[in-house]
Amino acid sequence: MRAEIISVGTELLLGHTINTDAAHVGRALSALGMDLLQVHTVGDNAGRLEAALREALNCADVVITTGGLGPTDDDMTKETVARVLGAPLEEHKDSLRRLREYFGSRPIAANQLKQAWLPRGSTAFPNRAGTAPGCAVPGKPGQWVILLPGPPSELLPMLEDSVMPFLQRMGGAVIASFMVRTFGIGEGSAALRIADLTEGANPTVAPYASDAEMFVRVTAKAENAEAAEALAKPVVDAVRGRLGDVVYGVNVSGLEAVVVEQLRQHRRSLAIAESCTGGLLAKRITDQPGASEVFGYGLITYANEAKTRLLGVPEEQLACYGAVSPQVARSMAVGVRERYGADYGLGITGVAGPGGGTEEKPVGLVYVALSCSNAIWLRVLRPQGRYLGREWTRRLASSHALDMLRRHMAGSACGGRMGGRAAAGLSFSAA
Amino acid sequence: MRAEIISVGTELLLGHTINTDAAHVGRALSALGMDLLQVHTVGDNAGRLEAALREALNCADVVITTGGLGPTDDDMTKETVARVLGAPLEEHKDSLRRLREYFGSRPIAANQLKQAWLPRGSTAFPNRAGTAPGCAVPGKPGQWVILLPGPPSELLPMLEDSVMPFLQRMGGAVIASFMVRTFGIGEGSAALRIADLTEGANPTVAPYASDAEMFVRVTAKAENAEAAEALAKPVVDAVRGRLGDVVYGVNVSGLEAVVVEQLRQHRRSLAIAESCTGGLLAKRITDQPGASEVFGYGLITYANEAKTRLLGVPEEQLACYGAVSPQVARSMAVGVRERYGADYGLGITGVAGPGGGTEEKPVGLVYVALSCSNAIWLRVLRPQGRYLGREWTRRLASSHALDMLRRHMAGSACGGRMGGRAAAGLSFSAA
Repeated sequence: MRAEIISVGTELLLGHTINTDAAHVGRALSALGMDLLQVHTVGDNAGRLEAALREALNCADVVITTGGLGPTDDDMTKETVARVLGAPLEEHKDSLRRLREYFGSRPIAANQLKQAWLPRGSTAFPNRAGTAPGCAVPGKPGQWVILLPGPPSELLPMLEDSVMPFLQRMGGAVIASFMVRTFGIGEGSAALRIADLTEGANPTVAPYASDAEMFVRVTAKAENAEAAEALAKPVVDAVRGRLGDVVYGVNVSGLEAVVVEQLRQHRRSLAIAESCTGGLLAKRITDQPGASEVFGYGLITYANEAKTRLLGVPEEQLACYGAVSPQVARSMAVGVRERYGADYGLGITGVAGPGGGTEEKPVGLVYVALSCSNAIWLRVLRPQGRYLGREWTRRLASSHALDMLRRHMAGSACGGRMGGRAAAGLSFSAA
Repeated sequence: MRAEIISVGTELLLGHTINTDAAHVGRALSALGMDLLQVHTVGDNAGRLEAALREALNCADVVITTGGLGPTDDDMTKETVARVLGAPLEEHKDSLRRLREYFGSRPIAANQLKQAWLPRGSTAFPNRAGTAPGCAVPGKPGQWVILLPGPPSELLPMLEDSVMPFLQRMGGAVIASFMVRTFGIGEGSAALRIADLTEGANPTVAPYASDAEMFVRVTAKAENAEAAEALAKPVVDAVRGRLGDVVYGVNVSGLEAVVVEQLRQHRRSLAIAESCTGGLLAKRITDQPGASEVFGYGLITYANEAKTRLLGVPEEQLACYGAVSPQVARSMAVGVRERYGADYGLGITGVAGPGGGTEEKPVGLVYVALSCSNAIWLRVLRPQGRYLGREWTRRLASSHALDMLRRHMAGSACGGRMGGRAAAGLSFSAA
């Protein structure tokens, strides 16, 4: 099955919006074993959209458009597809009902109502997060044009709920796809360890890097789900074996999901003290539904006074070593655990930048401490000459905190053990 | 001047890499007043790259390729351009010298050396951050094909240092582009209010929705920057006038940036008490460099005990009204402000879901309270039959909190005012 994506939106050409939709759809197509030939990005321009559409219809079995389904005049994807395929727009009853439900007692303007009109013969895809439904419009026999909304918050659920099942039915074969997720190994090293596994055609094995993590996707294709899984499973196990304890899960959504699940299973609780991450670690923990079972207290002690008052970090320690120090990270982790009665305490302090760095404490330097009833562990993230920005530094620091707790609960080494007043810790590159 | 971008790389089609290069180049072209007709993304496939190139050469004065300049076998952009333009590759002395400098005393493999070969007649662009130089290759008279490396860390400096000056010499108009950002109005309603403004050709005015917000882009083209700005400014003012106080900024990065800047200007401080948002609000505030000037304390009181202990929320209130109530939101906002000595206190409590909802307190219900020295304000977010998920609910709640504070500091109405024990608040749809 050959696919093409046409992304529609002048904001994409002007660079105001980055085309993440194409990456999301590309990933979905690749997970289904479909060949994406190309992505064509055009502005809100019916003529150019029409030309791209006609060209794509010549080569592809599935043409997926993103954007241009909204209520405004420059939203013209549906009209253009209707014209090119000779499938005039018709009122779609179910979409109209959903639109009326969405607006409730509020009045609906005519431009809003046009969203409930779909090309004749369409299969509608409901929009969980907005007003414009998506749809699949038949082209030549066996060919479909799939129209998706532009905002990622609308496109993503639709892709998962409706489009992937629709494409899977089209393709005949069933795909089993496993994502082996790791933290703490580079793409290059991981690729070397699994090099021979990536040569197979079914299952396919593909490594890729994302956001300081490294994933390996194993995808098998077969007549039914059981057969596809049976093909994939031994290869998934082989990948896990090669990569070792940097693997934190398979088909999990992230480190935070694994940590919350471990805490729940062990009936343990976590308290968090954050400085430079400013709530990001607590946010990632509470992204997980049901986090309240294992998490009750998160303190963002951005000010030094807050560290002393809420966590009991000694003023002398702040004065002597500074807020960004292994000693303060340790006091934060111990303080939040002991004061708020949790089984584990995590403390993070660092220089997120871009300002505030010194020669001794450069931007990107972060200390992460984990405290449990009988030990304290430390990691030091050092920028090593390359500072990758505030967002990266904060994200990486919160991932290291989660990884320390994950490894500790799994019985793996999780950092440098801190003695009485010692400041030693395992060092990691922060770039 | 008409431009096209061809992005080359299988990783882009698989969705392993998001095409940020196209956005960077698009922004540069628009700043120079060039019309970007389309972006074409193809894999590491010489045939499809050649087809895209031939098509682009038919329409555009400038064709910019990104990616495929590296040393490996699947890097074939330069070879393909050389073939299509009939400009055979030749050793480029200056690039060879730079390559030798880059490698120093290390040996240089043959595949590395191929990077110093450029199509005949090229203007070379040195690479500050990597080994592959970029170049501009002449096509028909007045036409150029510009080859840029794929890694953004290499592309960005080359774009700024070499490509923008090169394109500017080619001539063309200059663009001024303004993004008017709003919170609290739907795309449909906004479009109606500015309908007549969107009919102009220069400046162009285009609304679009993103993540529960609505933006309007105003773009003017003229001979120089001053003239373009002079064309755009009155229309930007008109858009602001039509939309009123839902506009939170022009060419700003988000509500949190505006709020931190307002706090800084007014020399006011903020303390935050979060329950259902679990750190997201504090995270958004501390995404801003320099947030520590205005923000010292953020408390994530996920457990009821934490609300009582850290914020002084009365136990009776939790027992009588429940943690998700206007009374508790109020006590959180007042408690965090008074206890931690801030000028403003924000309190958020709600049911983020997907579990935990009841008939009386459905998933998606959130109370947001703002406390200042002499008043307390409340917003109630009600799901109105449509629950859009945990992430959406949390994001929207944090945006409402930021919007309340922004409006309060700007002197606009920001919510329902709470009396002594009254529970009234302004209601908003949470969908």
